[in-house]
Amino acid sequence: MLKNIAIILVETSHAGNIGSTARAMKTMGLENLILVNPHDFPSGEAVALASGADDILENAQVVPSLEVALADAQLILGTSARLRTLPCPLLTPRQSAEIIIPQATQQKIAIIFGRERTGLTNEELAYCHYHIHIPTVEYFSSLNLAAAVQIMCYELRIAELEKTAAPTPAEVQPEHEIASFSEINGFYEHLEKTLYEINFLDPNHPKLILQRLKRLFNRARPDTREVNILRGILSAVEKKHN
Amino acid sequence: MLKNIAIILVETSHAGNIGSTARAMKTMGLENLILVNPHDFPSGEAVALASGADDILENAQVVPSLEVALADAQLILGTSARLRTLPCPLLTPRQSAEIIIPQATQQKIAIIFGRERTGLTNEELAYCHYHIHIPTVEYFSSLNLAAAVQIMCYELRIAELEKTAAPTPAEVQPEHEIASFSEINGFYEHLEKTLYEINFLDPNHPKLILQRLKRLFNRARPDTREVNILRGILSAVEKKHN
Repeated sequence: MLKNIAIILVETSHAGNIGSTARAMKTMGLENLILVNPHDFPSGEAVALASGADDILENAQVVPSLEVALADAQLILGTSARLRTLPCPLLTPRQSAEIIIPQATQQKIAIIFGRERTGLTNEELAYCHYHIHIPTVEYFSSLNLAAAVQIMCYELRIAELEKTAAPTPAEVQPEHEIASFSEINGFYEHLEKTLYEINFLDPNHPKLILQRLKRLFNRARPDTREVNILRGILSAVEKKHN
Repeated sequence: MLKNIAIILVETSHAGNIGSTARAMKTMGLENLILVNPHDFPSGEAVALASGADDILENAQVVPSLEVALADAQLILGTSARLRTLPCPLLTPRQSAEIIIPQATQQKIAIIFGRERTGLTNEELAYCHYHIHIPTVEYFSSLNLAAAVQIMCYELRIAELEKTAAPTPAEVQPEHEIASFSEINGFYEHLEKTLYEINFLDPNHPKLILQRLKRLFNRARPDTREVNILRGILSAVEKKHN
């Protein structure tokens, strides 16, 4: 799906930003880069900053105008640092990715990023079906061009992963079985016995400390091996003591 | 909320990445930067790439070790390019932001980013309560350091905006302060010493059991009183033993 999405950079001043953009795109699975009138391209600095995404740079189209870059595009989005520009729907990166991804199987999508200092002109923004605003803080909205591309490509990748329902890497399978109630209780009894032997518990009020310890271990939900390690420690304490 | 979140860069090689990190942080409202043994800092290139985020660089703490950087931290997350490292909960940036933001009003949070080439060591990752993996494509996971910081800070800002937009019902207040990294480390050192004294650790392979115990206690995230109880037990064992 991401193959149908073109990233378009308009009149980029710094070649390094083009290289960093290529790198940002490739990490997230995008490959289609179009450069409108770049000031300095091809460039060794772009290759250096692409850091292995040279193929994106080699295959990048360089075109003389935004109109040429957009020729095949069916859905056009433009990024804007301003919150209220033209009367056009303004989306967050996440909202825009949710709109783009379902359409990207069928349509050619273009996402336009403006000049480092001045962004896109009103005329250029008027080409867009949607505007995208990355929600920076008001007092420092100076997002680097490649950083803006990175955020946008990241949201596209996440939306694609969610759509393809690729399993997210969230859950780590526990290495061992979570200990059963009776294993945990066996440990607690052992703990209580040992704490008496080392005179740690006040025989008049033993319960409070034990309750606190149980609450601590319950939060961690020990697995069977961990319970065995803990009981091994208790046995070593008893052995030393006797 | 974002003021309680520190971004920690470990042994960064390129000063430019430090500057770009400062810029990335500031656009999203973060300001607390800690540099562990940077190769080249302070640096004119860092200032140039900070592009107006000079205040973040000026206020950055430079420290000689990750342990010093983490001293006050109560919730520690580390970024990893590997999907399966240590058995530790692995989160996406979005999931981690959803965990961090509700806690950031009360607690000191640390997010660690590793070296440009080699990331974080297993020992450094073992300090973390959670690992964060940015879901790059498998064939090109070479995310720039500042780009990774940008994505993470962006997710934190979005989560903060969502939280302030829709206040969630009361969170459970912990009874006591979550223990800081240095308190936890003090307990771990005490634990190691005691386990040697009772001959529980194999002097040839002491690390594995200790790692497992640390992982268990990290999951539970003990508060200060619980740490005091645990250290009280260790002292009672030592007293009995001597």
